[in-house]
Amino acid sequence: MNGLSLFKRASRAFDDYPTLAKLIVVCTVSGGGYVAYADANSTSGAHAIAPVSEIRKKKVVVVGTGWAGTSFLKKLNNPSYDVQVISPRNYFAFTPLLPSVTCGTVEARSIVEPIRSIVRKKGVNVSYCEAECFKIDADNKKVYCRPNPDSSMNGKEEFAVDYDYLVIAMGARPNTFNTPGVVEHCNFLKEVEDAQRIRRSVIDSFEKASLPTLSDEERKRILHFVVVGGGPTGVEFAAELHDFVNDDLVKLYPAAKDFVQITLLEAADHILNMQSGLADVGFDKRITDFAEKKFHRDGIDVKLGSMVVKVSDKEISTKVRGNGGEITAIPYGMVVWSTGIGTHPVIRNFMQQIGQTNRRALATDEWLRVEGCSSIYALGDCATINQRKVMEDIAAIFKKADKDNSGTLTVKEFQEVIDDICERYPQVELHLKNKKMSDIADLLKMAKGDVAKEAIELNIEEFKKALSEVDSQMKNLPATAQVAAQQGTYLANCFNRMEEAEKNPEGPIRFREEGRHRFRPFRYKHFGQFAPLGGEQTAAQLPGDWVSIGHSSQWLWYSVYASKLVSWRTRVLVITDWTRRFVFGRDSSRI
Amino acid sequence: MNGLSLFKRASRAFDDYPTLAKLIVVCTVSGGGYVAYADANSTSGAHAIAPVSEIRKKKVVVVGTGWAGTSFLKKLNNPSYDVQVISPRNYFAFTPLLPSVTCGTVEARSIVEPIRSIVRKKGVNVSYCEAECFKIDADNKKVYCRPNPDSSMNGKEEFAVDYDYLVIAMGARPNTFNTPGVVEHCNFLKEVEDAQRIRRSVIDSFEKASLPTLSDEERKRILHFVVVGGGPTGVEFAAELHDFVNDDLVKLYPAAKDFVQITLLEAADHILNMQSGLADVGFDKRITDFAEKKFHRDGIDVKLGSMVVKVSDKEISTKVRGNGGEITAIPYGMVVWSTGIGTHPVIRNFMQQIGQTNRRALATDEWLRVEGCSSIYALGDCATINQRKVMEDIAAIFKKADKDNSGTLTVKEFQEVIDDICERYPQVELHLKNKKMSDIADLLKMAKGDVAKEAIELNIEEFKKALSEVDSQMKNLPATAQVAAQQGTYLANCFNRMEEAEKNPEGPIRFREEGRHRFRPFRYKHFGQFAPLGGEQTAAQLPGDWVSIGHSSQWLWYSVYASKLVSWRTRVLVITDWTRRFVFGRDSSRI
Repeated sequence: MNGLSLFKRASRAFDDYPTLAKLIVVCTVSGGGYVAYADANSTSGAHAIAPVSEIRKKKVVVVGTGWAGTSFLKKLNNPSYDVQVISPRNYFAFTPLLPSVTCGTVEARSIVEPIRSIVRKKGVNVSYCEAECFKIDADNKKVYCRPNPDSSMNGKEEFAVDYDYLVIAMGARPNTFNTPGVVEHCNFLKEVEDAQRIRRSVIDSFEKASLPTLSDEERKRILHFVVVGGGPTGVEFAAELHDFVNDDLVKLYPAAKDFVQITLLEAADHILNMQSGLADVGFDKRITDFAEKKFHRDGIDVKLGSMVVKVSDKEISTKVRGNGGEITAIPYGMVVWSTGIGTHPVIRNFMQQIGQTNRRALATDEWLRVEGCSSIYALGDCATINQRKVMEDIAAIFKKADKDNSGTLTVKEFQEVIDDICERYPQVELHLKNKKMSDIADLLKMAKGDVAKEAIELNIEEFKKALSEVDSQMKNLPATAQVAAQQGTYLANCFNRMEEAEKNPEGPIRFREEGRHRFRPFRYKHFGQFAPLGGEQTAAQLPGDWVSIGHSSQWLWYSVYASKLVSWRTRVLVITDWTRRFVFGRDSSRI
Repeated sequence: MNGLSLFKRASRAFDDYPTLAKLIVVCTVSGGGYVAYADANSTSGAHAIAPVSEIRKKKVVVVGTGWAGTSFLKKLNNPSYDVQVISPRNYFAFTPLLPSVTCGTVEARSIVEPIRSIVRKKGVNVSYCEAECFKIDADNKKVYCRPNPDSSMNGKEEFAVDYDYLVIAMGARPNTFNTPGVVEHCNFLKEVEDAQRIRRSVIDSFEKASLPTLSDEERKRILHFVVVGGGPTGVEFAAELHDFVNDDLVKLYPAAKDFVQITLLEAADHILNMQSGLADVGFDKRITDFAEKKFHRDGIDVKLGSMVVKVSDKEISTKVRGNGGEITAIPYGMVVWSTGIGTHPVIRNFMQQIGQTNRRALATDEWLRVEGCSSIYALGDCATINQRKVMEDIAAIFKKADKDNSGTLTVKEFQEVIDDICERYPQVELHLKNKKMSDIADLLKMAKGDVAKEAIELNIEEFKKALSEVDSQMKNLPATAQVAAQQGTYLANCFNRMEEAEKNPEGPIRFREEGRHRFRPFRYKHFGQFAPLGGEQTAAQLPGDWVSIGHSSQWLWYSVYASKLVSWRTRVLVITDWTRRFVFGRDSSRI
């Protein structure tokens, strides 16, 4: 993979010459100065696009302004749509920096960009409406909305919006696993407001612990910060909090030093150990080990195999595995709950409506179309792709491949459809790659051009046997920003080329019907993952089992995140925030 | 006055060479870089001060962390006190920039500095407690406190703090003049949270007005912003809002442009026309005229002579003077109430306790001691100095001056006490300066060294007559940051030299008793005042009737405010905020 090796080489360069990375950050920023200024001041053509044709434009309604919705909007450039965006957040938030916002390493405003300014410079007619979608009516092609309930304005009038195409990108809710007390007593870390609330709570805890009326035991309880969930978010928050306390707060609250404790509770055997996800998504054992050891040195108490069973206002009860199921109650001051994602209530209702029950997320096909609904697309955390199983289509595939209707498949016939099969059923390609079907792969490879070998025949039973294990390779995509952003971009490209693809379909053969699919199905490319561990050290897991841990990865992290930010404004803001933090430390004012 | 002329000369230089001012801002910032870094990282000696003596330190309790309290804490450097600070805000806010925060020209966090970091580098033992004082018990020398009610922590335990000296600097509350509906429906602009709330409300209004369900009339109502009170704060907010709307919001909400309206309601005949205050405090007629004309050009509707009589959730009712007392109801979307200050409930209770009823603020003597309470000091917006009248002491003054007990005063005898009189009763000096007592002033001047003239005699009746009009010169100090800061500094200097002054009193003669006062009484020095009018134009009123209006004053404003900020951190933050605003405009994300 070309992108990968470039990435790898660049990273290695960063490792060898750490100043190079710093230089790149500096150049990126200063070089961007003029671009930024020009960008911020260009208004020409903002609303001066003439309608392309007189026919009624198709109305696309996009619900949500997170990673999926925003990258869809950013890439959509076909002026033949009228786009209506509905979301209670009038901004896009760069969520990977949320843990940094909890401790003031970056400011909340630096990681957000108004959705109106993201869409206003495009040739497409996009209008935004700050409202919450509370019901989807697929039969009448309508979504029902009400004004943002958080708003201070007192309007409550509900309204309906018609659509020709609906793009659902509402994201997910935190998953409490129905643990009692979680909703009432825990902080979550999904929205910008959550991060701001956590920041205030941390300061509140330190102020509260400084009051003269408390016993030392109470102080200890109040300054006990518990993080539930050892995934990337929980780990990063624990690391950020540790840095905030030790770099900044102990200077201002010297008496608090002896009472502060950070505890990380993880139900599995290791932190950063994601069970779901693609084969190559997740963290390497080396990273997990490093993180656990670093946290141990830092004094962060990592309790593995601890499952939270109840949260009350002052105590959190856990069941430790291998301990006879005994329940321990730990006094705490603040809990951050970061264990995974659950279903948005509106999505749950809609799923009931269309008969998709007992699922966490909306099932779509490989083209991100919601199963059973024409004209509705779902992407990001609120959706999962229901990858079609090869075994379900095995007879149709065999029939399509067997062009001479002989009842057997020659290697040559197989060769002709294998690319379409791999495209339609990516699990086959994965299986071929992992050398679990090396005999067939070798056969197909070696037989090329060899007439004798090309004549080797397979019958349907042999064919079935060869592909029987393929479907076990199927895994769900993880609920990450990377997946959502790629889905948004993919879908926008489909929408951009909709008419064109109708005439010249570019997808794989339809095995059950005639012709080809209009588009290639969505394929996720994993570019790696970071886990900042505090103290200017970050673990980076890049594709191809490539692992980097330490200060150089921190600079790689700075560079990648700075470059990924949505606008020059946020880029400059985040980088100045990092600089401010370096010079002045983090602020502890309670605002 | 030397300070004044320097100020004047500098300002004139800014006028002649506007780039000079910019250069100074730039130099201040870049030059401050290293200082800032060193400052932020110096921790040596923070808590390593050994106790000065073994005797029990006097305990000073400071209530409030606004301008008065903070400047007191900054200047206090006598290690013989134990200082306990109590305030629900764990930060000091640079309030003159609050109107800029309402529209995102500067960020809230840029104008605040944690009180703990302000006090931690001093040799004095200062501890801070985030709590609200709800009762003062002067008899038992205690203040009663409860934890910050805004805090998310759920402690409600009240506690008492003993003091030897109490410094009350709690500030004031907005004054609603008991107008019905104001508390329920209006925004104020006194705290950082108020400014943040206003910012969200402005964005909310624009989002609400963009919803598809509204009639144009409703849209017009929602985008009608009303500012009540044409003082410096109200005027600056109206100007900021106008800039925010026209520079930034209309680009993102093009449809809203035709509906936005800003109205400024002022009960008096002119805006920026402060009635109370010292003779030379307040704005010149030229500034008032310029501001009214500029607002007219900008489309801000200034309604003079309009008194608000009632506010409901959608309408504000005003009575226009000279209109037969007719009441008009104006539909509005958001109101900012900025008409002056009222009494804090805790102060009101305390005033009742000590018999100071029917006053707006705590009366103190010229040394900032609360009348009738030994060991309690009050300063800033919660206090007014009750300047002693000359006529009340006239017999005692005459007696003290008449050293030979002749029943008459020679000019020589008068000359000997006139300095003490002027110091004790500043109204006399003011009266002499204004040449209303020119005959006496001339006499005193010319008689110097002239034996014949020095022998001229005055009897008590003549003396009384000469001074009879003096007391009418007395005016209250305005409730401004400048006054509060000077009072804090003054009081800290008194506390620093308390023991010394006990031995060598440095104040004027006590006319009613023996000896001298320990300290000179507090004297306010007015350094001028700014009124930013939007569009990078500011009106500056400097002492000595010196007026400057326009872009150069805006740069003077930038320079003065940047230099006055409390720390290098806030200085750099505010200047980068200004730069960000210049390059990227103001952000309109609803966070």
